[in-house]
Amino acid sequence: MDDVYIAGAYVTRFGKFPDKTLRVLATEAVTGALADAGCGPDEIDAVYFANAAEGLLTGQEMIRGQVVLDGTGLEGKPVINCENACASGSTAAHLAFTAVQSGAADVALALGAEKLTNPDRARTFAVFQAGWDVERFGGPDGKSDQSAFMSTYADMARQYMARSGATIEDFAAVSVKSHANGALNPNAQYRDPLTVDEVLASRVIDDPLRLLMCSPIGDGASAVVVANHRGLARLDAEPVRVLAAALRSGSRDESETPVIVAARAAYEHAGIRPDDLDVLEIHDAAAPAELMVTEELGLAGPGEGLALFHAGATRIGGRFPINPGGGLLSRGHPIGATGCAQLTELVDQLRGRCGARQVEDAKIALAENAGGWLGGKGPAVATITILGRDGACPGSEA
Amino acid sequence: MDDVYIAGAYVTRFGKFPDKTLRVLATEAVTGALADAGCGPDEIDAVYFANAAEGLLTGQEMIRGQVVLDGTGLEGKPVINCENACASGSTAAHLAFTAVQSGAADVALALGAEKLTNPDRARTFAVFQAGWDVERFGGPDGKSDQSAFMSTYADMARQYMARSGATIEDFAAVSVKSHANGALNPNAQYRDPLTVDEVLASRVIDDPLRLLMCSPIGDGASAVVVANHRGLARLDAEPVRVLAAALRSGSRDESETPVIVAARAAYEHAGIRPDDLDVLEIHDAAAPAELMVTEELGLAGPGEGLALFHAGATRIGGRFPINPGGGLLSRGHPIGATGCAQLTELVDQLRGRCGARQVEDAKIALAENAGGWLGGKGPAVATITILGRDGACPGSEA
Repeated sequence: MDDVYIAGAYVTRFGKFPDKTLRVLATEAVTGALADAGCGPDEIDAVYFANAAEGLLTGQEMIRGQVVLDGTGLEGKPVINCENACASGSTAAHLAFTAVQSGAADVALALGAEKLTNPDRARTFAVFQAGWDVERFGGPDGKSDQSAFMSTYADMARQYMARSGATIEDFAAVSVKSHANGALNPNAQYRDPLTVDEVLASRVIDDPLRLLMCSPIGDGASAVVVANHRGLARLDAEPVRVLAAALRSGSRDESETPVIVAARAAYEHAGIRPDDLDVLEIHDAAAPAELMVTEELGLAGPGEGLALFHAGATRIGGRFPINPGGGLLSRGHPIGATGCAQLTELVDQLRGRCGARQVEDAKIALAENAGGWLGGKGPAVATITILGRDGACPGSEA
Repeated sequence: MDDVYIAGAYVTRFGKFPDKTLRVLATEAVTGALADAGCGPDEIDAVYFANAAEGLLTGQEMIRGQVVLDGTGLEGKPVINCENACASGSTAAHLAFTAVQSGAADVALALGAEKLTNPDRARTFAVFQAGWDVERFGGPDGKSDQSAFMSTYADMARQYMARSGATIEDFAAVSVKSHANGALNPNAQYRDPLTVDEVLASRVIDDPLRLLMCSPIGDGASAVVVANHRGLARLDAEPVRVLAAALRSGSRDESETPVIVAARAAYEHAGIRPDDLDVLEIHDAAAPAELMVTEELGLAGPGEGLALFHAGATRIGGRFPINPGGGLLSRGHPIGATGCAQLTELVDQLRGRCGARQVEDAKIALAENAGGWLGGKGPAVATITILGRDGACPGSEA
């Protein structure tokens, strides 16, 4: 992408906020992202809003963005409501990238907001079933007390154990690493470091997954302001370049997961190789994902993600720091908010604003966001976004 | 838009099809649009899918597009699920326009599909409440036996009667005109001409609205293939140019409806005036809309839409033929399918393929699609799309 920048980014703290409405969370994210971009709502030409659960939890569908934007100063703007399961937030961002690249907008806002906490916990868990093929696998019945999605992750984890030799202790260690990072992030849902023993002692969700290997239920919002060069002239921002954005779907019969396919497209578009990456945010809805995704992204060969992890490469200070903000496991995972939260973390890493969890001299960053399931090897949808500190990627300086 | 074309378009028959799944309807539309564009699924770079009701009717959310595309040959493609109430379909089309304009895709598919018929009629009617601000006005309670939305339309109709002198008989006459057009459209849900007396004798929904002044519940799908000039080279199509596409939201406190604001932007972008239009599809969810929208679009002055109608201007053969395909009133209104159905009608009008309902020598066409309600004067969202037969609009030949 020759002329696409993230000019502002903001994430609310993630957590269980029974007293905050979706509108309150969204408004905080909008206000924060606009302030970071150095503009007011008048400068925003279009809004892309991501949310996944409101329809089933509150009955609000169809115009979710227009509803939450009431009172933000963005009333009347072009608003597009979009969804792609747990990748909804990055989908909104990708639409904003496309809009400013086309010139349809010069400054666009991508906003993701989600409120999963509900007095009826079973209803919250049932929501996740809406992210697979309901006709094939059954619909949200409101009777679950945990997400059937975690059974899918458990299946994938068992398959990964068989082919890589990974153990339950390895998955626990991934969670420990993520929580150590989250402890350094003021906006993380969980800010207490954990031990391997604590993770292993937590409730079994579906073997090998323990509760503390799974991303939590929570609420939150995140937003990014996206601009082209004409738009930047209207802002007072420290922008980060978008080097590539790729989105692909999965299928039942896929030979490669959409993560692999989207990553390949994104690397090619950005003109970089995995080895050029300095920091990553990946979609660790459950702890084993970090190991698997390092392989799908080409940071490690097949079955070698475990060795990469054990070598410390994915820690802050390692060769490929992954989820310095705590990832989904400890920053939290309010579905529609996650994609822009990942981008916010990376934008702040590239701008050197991450304090105790700062990755030194980060120049090129990658976010992997994924969601849903159609019965194939990977998720129903995956997005890859590659960001660069200005001047970081000579090959893309078109 | 300098380089955006609709290269293929298709609409299924609209109606009550209890035995057809959403996937079956969507597959027919995809297959038809690809055939019309002269390509197979391999040529499609991205898909924008519109749907509004599946979440509340079947529990399918989040990845609705990926689910219905299973089996179409489009598995694995980039898919974005979008929503904007009754304007969802045109929203998908606008995203496709932006994508091909940006070069993110050279050929994109916009698909809208909806299945509203449900064994539980009250559940279908309750869905419509999800298109307003649920926190403010109450949510889908599953107990209605008709859409509370029609009460909003009835309110607007009463206000219009007060300021224009329009009568119930006038609204009935609008419905008669639309059904006369629908009778010429093999894909219309209702194909029987009506008389004013028949309309007036139908059940009172909310005074002044009678049942036959309201768009029906139904199922259907529609798709358009969108391309830039690089994309056109890969197709075997008779393309129509997209001269302008504008989308605006409403608000509680609006001074002008989003239809007015979007139309102004679209006219300016296309470099045309209302007087340049040859044929229109407008969002007549209820019959009075035709009169009001002609004023919002500037075809008639305030309060003068009625006189325009009485002069026969909006009939096929008149100065501004409106809804030659029957409009929402008789072609039908499966929410997410309507936007692309309007575009399909206009594309076929510009290509001279509409047989008995053909508008002679139509060169420039406008579609108005709208949806949702936030408590303001107009809808929560409105889109305006202006199409031109190639060479029809010298001012836009950039």
